Amino acid sequence: MIEIERKFLVKNEDFKKSAFTKNHIAQGYLSSVPERTVRVRIKGNQGFLTIKGASNASGLSRFEWEKEISVEEAQQLLPLCEKGVIDKTRFEIKIGEHIFEVDEFYGDNQGLIVAEIELDTEETSFEKPEWLGEEVTGDIKYYNAYLSQNPFTQW
Amino acid sequence: MIEIERKFLVKNEDFKKSAFTKNHIAQGYLSSVPERTVRVRIKGNQGFLTIKGASNASGLSRFEWEKEISVEEAQQLLPLCEKGVIDKTRFEIKIGEHIFEVDEFYGDNQGLIVAEIELDTEETSFEKPEWLGEEVTGDIKYYNAYLSQNPFTQW
Repeated sequence: MIEIERKFLVKNEDFKKSAFTKNHIAQGYLSSVPERTVRVRIKGNQGFLTIKGASNASGLSRFEWEKEISVEEAQQLLPLCEKGVIDKTRFEIKIGEHIFEVDEFYGDNQGLIVAEIELDTEETSFEKPEWLGEEVTGDIKYYNAYLSQNPFTQW
Repeated sequence: MIEIERKFLVKNEDFKKSAFTKNHIAQGYLSSVPERTVRVRIKGNQGFLTIKGASNASGLSRFEWEKEISVEEAQQLLPLCEKGVIDKTRFEIKIGEHIFEVDEFYGDNQGLIVAEIELDTEETSFEKPEWLGEEVTGDIKYYNAYLSQNPFTQW
């Protein structure tokens, strides 16, 4: 399926007050090039294998295919991944009709906090909370696949 | 799981006489490096996603993870793959207690025929049919992932 997502930096930690979920995520990449990323993820007690294609011209939409796998399978696949496993906590916050996913990164990406919102169309409008910062949609630097190879603390 | 496989060149087409299955295979790679290959395959009316790790020191065994997916999913994923889709017919031939999988390649790999046998242990013995040629187990050149990028007709 094609996903429409917009991505933003986050100005402060006020989003944590209104989060309704909080999950630890560890993920690695079997391929980290933007044309075809293959991601292995452990999120809480679930595993996922996710394949993404290149972004379209606007940088807003991207083909995405995802299958749930067991945590055991994900644990077997993570050691095969390229160096640079991503370690983060994901918070979910409901603002108006939409849900923001906010990722607080640790390890080599410590200090980075990024918010994402999934939308039905490229034109869909949404409410912006006060903690939402600069838009970075389509900026490859903020792809997790890029961060795994070029972590934030080394920018 | 860990797979133990031995691979051979094939001297002539006599194997076709005793084949009990014959299936067309199209496959591409989301990652083609030997340390982590990610393969999308359409075999007859089935789709598969297969992830393989690096070979062990002897070149005989390799971590392999495979999930069946629908042909429609595989058709969506193939266009994301690196250039160099592999096109071949796979024949299965029973020899004694074991099954040989023989792949006859087309397109840019026309002229190449390779046989593989899966074994329980590295020491397991097996009967060799007269059409079996030189052993090429562990030779990365004969990995399909390598062939997709460096096809046989260009060697």
